[in-house]
Amino acid sequence: MEHLTRVLFDIFLIFASAKLLGELFERFRQPAVVGEVLAGLLLGPYLLGIVPHSPVYEGIAEIGVIFLLFTVGLETKPSDILKVGVVASKVGLLGILLPFVLGFGLIAYLGHPTLEALFIGTALVATSVGITARVLGDMGLIQEIESRIILGAAVIDDIIGMILLAVVSSLGEGALSWVRITLVAVEAIAFTLFLGLVGSRVINRYGRWIERIKTPQAPLVFSILICLGLSALSSAIGMAAIIGAFMAGMVLAEFSEGYHLVEKAEAIYAFLVPFFFFVMGSHINLAVMASGEIIWLALVITVLAVVGKLVGCGIGALSLGRSGALIVGVGMVPRGEVGIIVAMLGLRLHAIPESMYALVIFMSVVTTLAVPPVLRVLFRERLQTREQATIWTAREKAG
Amino acid sequence: MEHLTRVLFDIFLIFASAKLLGELFERFRQPAVVGEVLAGLLLGPYLLGIVPHSPVYEGIAEIGVIFLLFTVGLETKPSDILKVGVVASKVGLLGILLPFVLGFGLIAYLGHPTLEALFIGTALVATSVGITARVLGDMGLIQEIESRIILGAAVIDDIIGMILLAVVSSLGEGALSWVRITLVAVEAIAFTLFLGLVGSRVINRYGRWIERIKTPQAPLVFSILICLGLSALSSAIGMAAIIGAFMAGMVLAEFSEGYHLVEKAEAIYAFLVPFFFFVMGSHINLAVMASGEIIWLALVITVLAVVGKLVGCGIGALSLGRSGALIVGVGMVPRGEVGIIVAMLGLRLHAIPESMYALVIFMSVVTTLAVPPVLRVLFRERLQTREQATIWTAREKAG
Repeated sequence: MEHLTRVLFDIFLIFASAKLLGELFERFRQPAVVGEVLAGLLLGPYLLGIVPHSPVYEGIAEIGVIFLLFTVGLETKPSDILKVGVVASKVGLLGILLPFVLGFGLIAYLGHPTLEALFIGTALVATSVGITARVLGDMGLIQEIESRIILGAAVIDDIIGMILLAVVSSLGEGALSWVRITLVAVEAIAFTLFLGLVGSRVINRYGRWIERIKTPQAPLVFSILICLGLSALSSAIGMAAIIGAFMAGMVLAEFSEGYHLVEKAEAIYAFLVPFFFFVMGSHINLAVMASGEIIWLALVITVLAVVGKLVGCGIGALSLGRSGALIVGVGMVPRGEVGIIVAMLGLRLHAIPESMYALVIFMSVVTTLAVPPVLRVLFRERLQTREQATIWTAREKAG
Repeated sequence: MEHLTRVLFDIFLIFASAKLLGELFERFRQPAVVGEVLAGLLLGPYLLGIVPHSPVYEGIAEIGVIFLLFTVGLETKPSDILKVGVVASKVGLLGILLPFVLGFGLIAYLGHPTLEALFIGTALVATSVGITARVLGDMGLIQEIESRIILGAAVIDDIIGMILLAVVSSLGEGALSWVRITLVAVEAIAFTLFLGLVGSRVINRYGRWIERIKTPQAPLVFSILICLGLSALSSAIGMAAIIGAFMAGMVLAEFSEGYHLVEKAEAIYAFLVPFFFFVMGSHINLAVMASGEIIWLALVITVLAVVGKLVGCGIGALSLGRSGALIVGVGMVPRGEVGIIVAMLGLRLHAIPESMYALVIFMSVVTTLAVPPVLRVLFRERLQTREQATIWTAREKAG
């Protein structure tokens, strides 16, 4: 029982510290996710050593990240991607190309292995839809034209980012060859397209039979089954498990609306996801960052990550005018959890060393922390107009 | 990555098989929980050997059972216990005394160690509130006088059962002495009373500050924190973790109503609890049941479990008349998860051997399986009257 008590206390400590630091960051108008990673860094084995590494917490964290991507997927309807149109596609594609080329180029130029350079390039690619959406939502700006383009582009960017991740992570398991890259890319694109086009149609058409199931919470149980099944499947065919989880969510996005699935998934999310970020933080070994070279490299990579998105996405959105393009560029900068997930995968596959992992975390945290205040300034005028409009509407109603 | 794929497939298999067999049992109007245990028995290492034992699944199962008891607690208001009054208390107390004395007496008489006899006696004690309530709810009979007494008595029986469990499980960790028993009982009762009387008042009075917390899902996060904290605490002071989880739920029962916590807890429940019953089933080693003596003992224990509740609770409810007393007696028979939890604890503490564990599972499954059809027959007349009344009401409205 000694052991069980220890595990229970650890679980309590992980959840409590992640939520406490998350709340602290929210109070300072910063993303909670940074606080959760920090909790793991502080309490984990490399700093205070209060919570050890354990397969139990890694397992819970893995289920947590699966639910994170599943929930993001649930809010991403395939039809939404089609609606946002040409601008979002341009923003998404250019915003992927530039950071990838810059990151890959720098690391390859410095003489690191090709696989390592590919992982760093991929880690620079994916904008964190969750963080971007949360910032825009908190500011009440989801309906702005720039916001809709950011969200649409982030979805495209997420999908391509995941295909890239699929390619890179399966490369991590075998020898590098262009035939293999092409094969894996085709496999990943086929898997994604098949689920996106056929999967959601099948679910939307035949999903109603779920009402004949007697199990309580049948729609939720059915969705979790699809999520776990596709996660295991995509892991088995050499892609990351989270890609399956995201696709499961997207396939279920329209079906879920009739059954309040998002609310239910969010309850599970609220419980399990902090374990993921805590465990991520607990793997940051600051000692490997101690060398001057790595610190410089981290700063350079972070600058490239910011410039890559700002310029790439900005060019893609030039049709909105300079101010609109700037907002879109800034909104696409945060990397958040997706960069961390890529780095974690690279670390597990021994494709990148601990120092590169710490570097990606640094880049993710800085880009995520920097964006909310800048976005606030850029949107300030719009917010003031909005407030004025609200006051007028209220006056009209009162009069 | 091989290892991760394996874990993901196991998690999918555990959830899928538990839910599939659960659904099958529901179709045959049997409790789903029996199907979930069966899934673990079948796929676990002792039979088909598809899903191995692993600290990861045991960890998820432990969190699952904590959420099970937490959710039961959330639906148990301290004030409800006071309302149901004298009959429920008599039913609860007599329904505990008789099965405990019968179970303890038989095992001690057969020459087994005192601690083992205490564990078996305790495993016979606790009616499964969840199963009883679910059967009554499914039949639309929650408002019947017998139903309310059954639910009230089940709550009292649950609390006393948990105090007993606390006493017995802490005895499992040290030498047996009456001083120690008294100390532990006082500790358990003090912990229970303090939380029940002071805890819920404090929460109800000061709980509203939660609305000033910025973290999303703050009330849920707050409740999970209390649940995990009290679980770890009760484990640390030598009681079972689930007692803390149940008390956490009860303390939050009134607070939770304003925040739809039950719905959210039920979503987490739907995901995690099947892991618990699967893991429980995976620990049943049928081979140890192969000896004739154990099979006879299992049958005798099961008969004692049924007779103990039927007679004990029946006598307690005699004021309802013979038919009412019979319904209450039958309704209190299912042991379900609580018996299994006690046995699991005993197994972990090496207080009971594997054969006794299998025996308690047998008793729990049989008492749980037997009750729904019998209750249906006993309530049939009432149901017919109800249908007639519904038809009349419908006619009146139509006319």
